[in-house]
Amino acid sequence: MAEDTFDLIIIGAGPGGYTAAIRAAKNGLKTAVVEAGRVGGTCLNRGCIPAKAMIHASSLYQEMLSGGTFGVSASGVAYDYGKILAYKEETTDQLCKGVEQLLKANKVTVIYGKGTLTGNREVRVIDASGTEHVYGARHVLLAAGSKPMLPPIPGMDLEGVLTSDGLLKLAEVPDSLLIIGGGVISMEFATVYLALGSKAAVVEALPRLVPNMDKEISQNLKMIMKKRGLDIHTGASVKRIEKEGEHLVCTFEEKGQEVRSSARYVLCAAGRCPDTDTLLEEGTGIRLDRGRIVVDDRFCTDMDGVYAVGDLIKGTQLAHAAAAQGMYVADIIAGRSPSVDLGVIPGCVYTEPEIASVGMTEEEAREKGCETKTGKFIMSANGKSLITKEERGFIKVVAEAHTGVILGAHMMCARATDMIGEFTTAIANRLTVEQLLKGMRAHPTYNEGAGEALEEVFGEAIHVVPRRR
Amino acid sequence: MAEDTFDLIIIGAGPGGYTAAIRAAKNGLKTAVVEAGRVGGTCLNRGCIPAKAMIHASSLYQEMLSGGTFGVSASGVAYDYGKILAYKEETTDQLCKGVEQLLKANKVTVIYGKGTLTGNREVRVIDASGTEHVYGARHVLLAAGSKPMLPPIPGMDLEGVLTSDGLLKLAEVPDSLLIIGGGVISMEFATVYLALGSKAAVVEALPRLVPNMDKEISQNLKMIMKKRGLDIHTGASVKRIEKEGEHLVCTFEEKGQEVRSSARYVLCAAGRCPDTDTLLEEGTGIRLDRGRIVVDDRFCTDMDGVYAVGDLIKGTQLAHAAAAQGMYVADIIAGRSPSVDLGVIPGCVYTEPEIASVGMTEEEAREKGCETKTGKFIMSANGKSLITKEERGFIKVVAEAHTGVILGAHMMCARATDMIGEFTTAIANRLTVEQLLKGMRAHPTYNEGAGEALEEVFGEAIHVVPRRR
Repeated sequence: MAEDTFDLIIIGAGPGGYTAAIRAAKNGLKTAVVEAGRVGGTCLNRGCIPAKAMIHASSLYQEMLSGGTFGVSASGVAYDYGKILAYKEETTDQLCKGVEQLLKANKVTVIYGKGTLTGNREVRVIDASGTEHVYGARHVLLAAGSKPMLPPIPGMDLEGVLTSDGLLKLAEVPDSLLIIGGGVISMEFATVYLALGSKAAVVEALPRLVPNMDKEISQNLKMIMKKRGLDIHTGASVKRIEKEGEHLVCTFEEKGQEVRSSARYVLCAAGRCPDTDTLLEEGTGIRLDRGRIVVDDRFCTDMDGVYAVGDLIKGTQLAHAAAAQGMYVADIIAGRSPSVDLGVIPGCVYTEPEIASVGMTEEEAREKGCETKTGKFIMSANGKSLITKEERGFIKVVAEAHTGVILGAHMMCARATDMIGEFTTAIANRLTVEQLLKGMRAHPTYNEGAGEALEEVFGEAIHVVPRRR
Repeated sequence: MAEDTFDLIIIGAGPGGYTAAIRAAKNGLKTAVVEAGRVGGTCLNRGCIPAKAMIHASSLYQEMLSGGTFGVSASGVAYDYGKILAYKEETTDQLCKGVEQLLKANKVTVIYGKGTLTGNREVRVIDASGTEHVYGARHVLLAAGSKPMLPPIPGMDLEGVLTSDGLLKLAEVPDSLLIIGGGVISMEFATVYLALGSKAAVVEALPRLVPNMDKEISQNLKMIMKKRGLDIHTGASVKRIEKEGEHLVCTFEEKGQEVRSSARYVLCAAGRCPDTDTLLEEGTGIRLDRGRIVVDDRFCTDMDGVYAVGDLIKGTQLAHAAAAQGMYVADIIAGRSPSVDLGVIPGCVYTEPEIASVGMTEEEAREKGCETKTGKFIMSANGKSLITKEERGFIKVVAEAHTGVILGAHMMCARATDMIGEFTTAIANRLTVEQLLKGMRAHPTYNEGAGEALEEVFGEAIHVVPRRR
């Protein structure tokens, strides 16, 4: 018999789960969330937050080394990796405690333990002492998230082959690091360890870095990362990893050649897969497709009253997408119409400079048969970027040719991750280039670059040298 | 007889003038710009740009001193003021050269010398050698800008009493500085010199700092500046300045008491006034009102074909406002409809944290008889702000109660000056809170705070502890 019954039980207290729980509670639902580890999920404990803390500390170290450019100098700039890790832990702790407090203040019941959905739509939880509890629920939301995927490559089980989880726990800065995969996680860790002085290499199977993003972003990123010493191999497939003395040797095929690269540690950043272990009891009838839970466009699974969001389902694996989906489910259960457009998902990479992207690239638009106009502005003509001596960056706006409706924005520049917000809003509301040009941009800001990119859709930016006619 | 005749002659190559010139040239007009000093005007040469460079260098110095918080330390952190000034000069030089190149590439004729509008709508220029040239013009745009205003206080002419122009040229960091005025320029210079270790005081006549901005911004700024050691006197009117030995003693009245404060230098930051000296010959018939050129809503002066924009006219004295007005004039002369909404002007202060504001405050809306709803989010619950350990900040959104149309946004937080862009766009397009909530905010960003402030208009932000009901 169920110990207690809720309007909504959520399995997993990551960004998808805890956000849904708070929203549901605000919507008046009696809500519980089941969490096997710490609230906050991968994002707070092993993902975005700790990674960004490491990026902040390592970038500060680099800034301090190059302060002379701005007339500020220091002798003996040094980092204490133990202290960087402590700062990282302190930050995640603070945020996790914040989430705990919010859940409590909103009267969400937090049940610690491993949760399983049973065949009769109850939630069974095994707590830390091994005791089993069963809870009843009108609705269940599966939000258990994901875990690093380990491709079936010989040698993946060797000591020193790490996932992002392991790398974040490593007590020392690797003197050399080889990263399998050239996506977002890879580029962020490369940013951190290059800044801290590691030798680093990356091996990506596809022809370019951050392959889901605008091509020019990949090109620019490659150029900047190469300058920082990153050894980049694209279109390269890893064959095996072997131990040789203190080092790991990774063998991969690149342009028909077999190449060997050695490093003290290997980071496997080849993607993440849904964490469905013990999530579903037999008999739920919930279908999976390549490991991901199948849902309809309202996030309903095949079992009545059971929903799934976030990294468990097909689509973008991003904290804010999971959170928005979680809020959506909490709203529809409560009979409210959700506010967010779930189809427009910004993506960010916290490299230096930052990368941010939303909507379609020119290529994607072309593939969909859409005629486009593009405006691009190189940030080296932006005053604020000159003041802070930014590396080469740009802002690109893609608009539908005949209507001017904004289809996409792609930025690699200072503060890109915060400036993308306006373009997400624009795309979600089908705003046009002209509507965005109605807003005056403050001076001197990076944001003026967005205005100039918009002007360049018509070839009219003030700070762009005109082409000869 | 005129040496040459143009479709448009612009007097002043500051942000208003050079932007108008480039836009006019792009619009196909034969354009000239007359400049007495260097192109770029006050903004590039003696205003925004050098000030922001100083802020960047001095903030970096402070960051380096407190790197230990993030596990990065340095011994002997020091600044070389000469090098900071050189970096500042180099930055302004680079930007001025950029403007020169753009003017050239757009085939704008640059005429160096002091320009005067004659009674028969010609432009007379006296060049560096004292030679007089006269140019004919179909249209003339007056964009001569402004200069620091010196209030009629005894002692303003003493050595050591400086305007922003003088302070930027000073070869040493003042060990003590008293600032008359508590507006934007004052707060930015206070930020710089407090960071560099000066003792600083500010005397403002009105009851609060940055008196044109949201009240809570003033309060928060006061608290933060006080913590940094700024000696703040508001509601205080300066009576006189006197020399005592090496120091200047400023006497002011505060709460009915006479207070004396001494400093090595005094910065007069009491506002700026139009620079109309020798701009208008007798007989133009152009009216001035309290020193400012009178224009209609299309920036036409009383003389046919003569326009004025920027700091010369009534309204906000900001570079981007002048630039937008300049573009407007260049467009209407060419028969095009201008794209920017000139009524929505964002304002920024480059303190730490940054301040940005656009549209109406709650008070202004109330005065206009508008019923409002406000959403406020304290940034201490924002993940990215916790990672970078920002000082207390917030984002406030003011919306019309019955429609949800956004009326204003007021921010004091990291990256505020770039995030204000979205709200400027929103207000210029009469977007609603619901429309802005359609856009998903990327995680972890400062921009999520904007989303939460928007949610708080309905009392529904996820990361706000609910009030007891």
